[in-house]
Amino acid sequence: KDSYSITLLPGDGIGPEITTATVAAIQPFSKLFKMEFKEALIGGAAIDATGSPFPDATFEQIKASDSVLLSAIGGPKWDGNPREQRPETGLLAMRKGLGLFANLRPAKVVRQLLDASTLKPEIVDGVDIMVVRELTGDVYFGTPKGIETTESGERFGYNNMIYYEHEVERIARVAFDVARKRGKRVCSVDKANVLDVSQLWRDVVIRIQKDEYPDVELTHQYVDNAAMQLIRWPKQFDVMVTGNIFGDILSDEASMLVGSLGMLPSASVGNPSGPGVFEPCHGSAPDIAGQDKANPLAMILSAAMMLRYDLGRPEEADLLETAVDNVLDQGYATADIMRDGCKPVGCKEMGQRVAEAL
Amino acid sequence: KDSYSITLLPGDGIGPEITTATVAAIQPFSKLFKMEFKEALIGGAAIDATGSPFPDATFEQIKASDSVLLSAIGGPKWDGNPREQRPETGLLAMRKGLGLFANLRPAKVVRQLLDASTLKPEIVDGVDIMVVRELTGDVYFGTPKGIETTESGERFGYNNMIYYEHEVERIARVAFDVARKRGKRVCSVDKANVLDVSQLWRDVVIRIQKDEYPDVELTHQYVDNAAMQLIRWPKQFDVMVTGNIFGDILSDEASMLVGSLGMLPSASVGNPSGPGVFEPCHGSAPDIAGQDKANPLAMILSAAMMLRYDLGRPEEADLLETAVDNVLDQGYATADIMRDGCKPVGCKEMGQRVAEAL
Ligand SMILES: CC(C)[C@H](C(=O)O)[C@@H](O)C(=O)O
Ligand SMILES: CC(C)[C@H](C(=O)O)[C@@H](O)C(=O)O
Repeated sequence: KDSYSITLLPGDGIGPEITTATVAAIQPFSKLFKMEFKEALIGGAAIDATGSPFPDATFEQIKASDSVLLSAIGGPKWDGNPREQRPETGLLAMRKGLGLFANLRPAKVVRQLLDASTLKPEIVDGVDIMVVRELTGDVYFGTPKGIETTESGERFGYNNMIYYEHEVERIARVAFDVARKRGKRVCSVDKANVLDVSQLWRDVVIRIQKDEYPDVELTHQYVDNAAMQLIRWPKQFDVMVTGNIFGDILSDEASMLVGSLGMLPSASVGNPSGPGVFEPCHGSAPDIAGQDKANPLAMILSAAMMLRYDLGRPEEADLLETAVDNVLDQGYATADIMRDGCKPVGCKEMGQRVAEAL
Repeated sequence: KDSYSITLLPGDGIGPEITTATVAAIQPFSKLFKMEFKEALIGGAAIDATGSPFPDATFEQIKASDSVLLSAIGGPKWDGNPREQRPETGLLAMRKGLGLFANLRPAKVVRQLLDASTLKPEIVDGVDIMVVRELTGDVYFGTPKGIETTESGERFGYNNMIYYEHEVERIARVAFDVARKRGKRVCSVDKANVLDVSQLWRDVVIRIQKDEYPDVELTHQYVDNAAMQLIRWPKQFDVMVTGNIFGDILSDEASMLVGSLGMLPSASVGNPSGPGVFEPCHGSAPDIAGQDKANPLAMILSAAMMLRYDLGRPEEADLLETAVDNVLDQGYATADIMRDGCKPVGCKEMGQRVAEAL
C-alpha cells in the first residue's frame, strides 16, 4: 500500500498548532507514499460546533480512514459541563466505538533531556518502559453504575470494576507480542490480593503466557507496589501490562521518569480492521495556545507510532524518531525543554527542523 | 487517664523483633503513665496457630484495649493460600471490624536521610504530606463481587466501586480536621471526569468544605494527574484525601519521596469508641527476619502516632519523635538507612538508643 488517508483531530488549545507542525514534519515522506489528511472535530471544538464531543460525522470519517492523529482536547471552558458534554467523554466514546482496547505508552528516557526528570539521573538513565494499558473495559465502562438514593434518603455512587476473560486475553497477547520485540519481560500489575476482578486478570495472564508465550518472562506486582517500584528502581521494567484505571495512573506516573511531557507519544490500537489513534500524552495547554510556544515533538513521535503500528512502515517510524533525536542533538528546544546552550525555537520551526533532519 | 492497655500484634517476619524494640523504646514513658502490653495473633502466625488470619480471640482482645500496635504481616509461606487464609485478609477484616475508616499516612521527608530518595534533594527537601486514605469502603469492600461464568461459558470477575454519602462525609471531616492543625490545605483526589462514584465523592467533599470548613482551602486533582504531581512537585501538597484504592496507590507512591520505607508510620483510626491500629508502612521482610537487622523506627514512629491520635498524649508523641530525630542526628543507623560516617546498630540497639534519647 502506498497511499494512506489520515484523519487529523486538532482538538483544543495548542492542538491545532502542533497538528500543523506535525504534518509539516512528516511531509518529506510524501516522496515515498501518499498521505491524504482530512480534519474532523472532537472535544471542546466539537461541542462548540455541534453540541457533541464526538459527532457522528467524525466517527464516520474516522472509520473510513487508515489512521488517526489526535492532538489534545479539553480546557476550562468546558470543565463545568455535564458529563455527556465534556471533551473527555468524546475521547472515551471514540476509544470504545473504534474498539481500541490497547493503549501503548512508552516511557523512554530521552538522553538529551536526562536532567528534565525530578528523579536522579542515575535512576532514570536508560529507562525504557512500555506501559500496555487496557483501554475499553474496567471500571471505565462497567455497568451497573450511577448515582442513586437509598430508601432512607442517602445518596451513593457506584461503578462496576469488571473484566471478561476475552478482554484480558487479548490485552495480554498485545503485551507479550510487544515484549517479544523488546526485552521479553512482562510485569502484570493488579490487586489480586484484594479484588476478584484482579484474581481473574492474573489467572488469565498466567494461562496465556504458559500456553502461548513460554519464551516471555512473566512477573506480577500489586498496583501499590508497582507505584513504588516505578520510582525506586524503574530500570527493572521492560513491558508493564495492566487494566484501564491502574494503567491510567501508572502510565502517567511513568511519564514523570522522562520528565518532559512534551516528549511523550501514545498509541491506541487493537482493532485489526480499523484505524488506530495516535496522540501525545500531554494536555491542550490552553494557557499557551496560539502563541507558537508549544512543543510538537510528542505529537510527531505519535506520528512515528502511527507509521509503525498502523501504516506498516516501521522503517519510516525509525527514520522519524532518529530525526527527532538529531534535532535534539542539534540543540533546538521549545520553551518546555530549554537547557543551557540550546537554541530556542517555536512550535512551527520545530516541525520544520524535524522535516529537514528527515 | 494514666493507664492504657495496648494490644501488640507482632505478626510475621521481622515483626516480633521490631515490636520488642518499640516496646523498649517507649518504656521510659512508664514513669508518666502505665502501659499494659498484651500480645495477640494476626496474619501468617495466626493462620499457622488457628487457621484464621484474624482469630476471634484477637478481635475480642483488641476491642477491650485502648490501642493496637501492629508490626507487619505476610510472607511467601502463605502467598499461595486461598484468599480467606491469607494474612492480608486478616488485616482487612480487622480494619472493617473495628470501623477504622481513616488511614493517616504521613510522607514527611527525614532531613538526615534526604539523599535516600531517588528524587533530587531539592525536590523532596521539606516535603511534608499527610495522605488521608478512606479505609473501609470502595472497591475493597463493595458488593456485588465475585468471579462468575456467562451463559456462553466465559468467566468474568467484578467488584463494585461504591461510596455512600456518609462514608465520604466522615473521611472528608478527618482530612479537614487534620488540615486545620497543619497547612489548612486539602487536595481531594478522584476520577470525577469518568466515574460516577467519584462524582459523588467530589460533590460531598465540596459540600462539607463549604458548610463546615470554610477556613480550609480545597482543591481537586484527578488521580492520574495526582500520581504525576507527587513526583513533579510534591511540595504543592499539604493534606491529600482520597478513596481506598487510589489511596493505596498514592500513599505508597508518596512514601518513595521519603526514600526509606523503614521510617514511615501509619495510623488507622476513625472509631471514637474503639482502639485505633498503628503500624509501619513496610512489610515483614522475611529475608532478614530474626537477624537483628531490621529498622524499628517506622514502628516507633507509629507508636508516636498512637500517643497522639489514640491515647491523647500529643506532648509525649512530640517527645518520641524528637528522640528519633536525635538518634538520627547522633548518626546511629540500621543497614537500610546506613550513610557515610554513621554508626551501624542493630534493631535492638536502635530501640535502646531511642529510649536513652527520651
Ligand atoms: C481524559 C481522561 C478520560 C483520560 C483517561 O482517563 O483515560 C486520560 O486521562 C487518558 O489517560 O487518556
Ligand atoms: C495488604 C493489602 C491488603 C493492604 C491494602 O491494600 O490495603 C496494604 O497494601 C496496605 O496498604 O495496607
